Amino acid sequence: MTSQGGARQPKYQRIADALKAAIRSGEYGPGDRLPGENDLMATYEVARMTARQALAVLQNEGLAEARKGAGVFVRAFRPLRRRGVQRLAREQWGSGRSVWSADTEDRELVVDQIEVREGTASERVADALGVSPGTPVWVRGRRFVLDGKPVLFATSHLPADIVAASAIAQIDPGPGGTYARLAELGHEPVHFREEIRSRMPSATEAERLSLALGTPVIQIVRTAFAQGGRAVEVNEMTLDSASYVLEYDFDA
Amino acid sequence: MTSQGGARQPKYQRIADALKAAIRSGEYGPGDRLPGENDLMATYEVARMTARQALAVLQNEGLAEARKGAGVFVRAFRPLRRRGVQRLAREQWGSGRSVWSADTEDRELVVDQIEVREGTASERVADALGVSPGTPVWVRGRRFVLDGKPVLFATSHLPADIVAASAIAQIDPGPGGTYARLAELGHEPVHFREEIRSRMPSATEAERLSLALGTPVIQIVRTAFAQGGRAVEVNEMTLDSASYVLEYDFDA
Repeated sequence: MTSQGGARQPKYQRIADALKAAIRSGEYGPGDRLPGENDLMATYEVARMTARQALAVLQNEGLAEARKGAGVFVRAFRPLRRRGVQRLAREQWGSGRSVWSADTEDRELVVDQIEVREGTASERVADALGVSPGTPVWVRGRRFVLDGKPVLFATSHLPADIVAASAIAQIDPGPGGTYARLAELGHEPVHFREEIRSRMPSATEAERLSLALGTPVIQIVRTAFAQGGRAVEVNEMTLDSASYVLEYDFDA
Repeated sequence: MTSQGGARQPKYQRIADALKAAIRSGEYGPGDRLPGENDLMATYEVARMTARQALAVLQNEGLAEARKGAGVFVRAFRPLRRRGVQRLAREQWGSGRSVWSADTEDRELVVDQIEVREGTASERVADALGVSPGTPVWVRGRRFVLDGKPVLFATSHLPADIVAASAIAQIDPGPGGTYARLAELGHEPVHFREEIRSRMPSATEAERLSLALGTPVIQIVRTAFAQGGRAVEVNEMTLDSASYVLEYDFDA
């Protein structure tokens, strides 16, 4: 078993490939414990370091995660499906539901680390809103925790001249959230642009999202535009990539 | 300098933060060489391992990349802007242009590792196409290299009963690519769905895309639907996350 095929590949890589195949075939399902270093050393007749490297490959690729003192487990990946277009449809927030409720199905969502404050537009936010840096904005920050796992944090920026006197400047913006309020203020969002990037997290981000080793973050920057093209919100979101599948549906 | 603020943070993290601030402020621009281990040891009065860890943080977050024997450099990030909706508009491929040409502006695009062959649908592909596993499909694989850097590889699967006798089964599918040919065959794509995930690359993927350390991949699975809802193509794409910004524009 240790000598077959792929002679070019290092040993730990061949062991990792065998483990991956076993995960794909269902031999090890989500949440199952993978063979430990001692098991791999015996099965493949390799040194401890080789066994450790093989398990590290699976962790680095986000297929498995180590639990302190308990071993390495197949990641129980049950991602949220975030339907980019449908979730922002006017029927959603216009009827008083939150945009987020579209993502979470029947799962338990907790919103924490809520922050609502006045601030000024950074260069990046100013650029997106089409105003000068330093222009007063209202900042709405929050984190989403699903089934006990933080999955996303978001910071939204809205022009103060529009929202300062409204419920958007309050902790609870009311039914339908900020978009429903913007509509009442005569600045209904009619168009959205989402920009998506992916990169490794900073130490702070990894902590805030309780990220397992080897898990990138997805960054989404959404700009909401009112009739006439004025940008009325810029929302910077940071997502645990292991918790999300993003979906966009559109016509040719 | 070594003692100020953030006493909770490890030293290497504080040095990394200082370097990041210097990058943000423009003190070090894209492609610039960052201070080396010796410089950091002298400036911050730290051990070599601490200096090395600080530089590793920047590489792991994708902000910098090591060049063998030359040092660590600020990544020259000039991502492609991939406009998800506009690039697939009928006017694009209907007029004989390739979908890809919409992403690359004036930059030099080379397509290599082209593979066109008959195959059978895996369980995942079959599921997306709404056929039984093992159903004959045509497989079109290729890699895109921009300005000398591989940025994406893609494998497209199309039902053999539709495309076997067409130019889609040839290396060069002709002007407007497979979508223009599908339209001629009476299976014009009218709707698309793109699913986006992000994760760390496998060793093979990292090699195929010449990925710098600490660079995740973005996976896009696109399904193209014809009138009536039949899936006529499933395209699995793997992108260098450092080379792409994905953009989706849509109405509320």
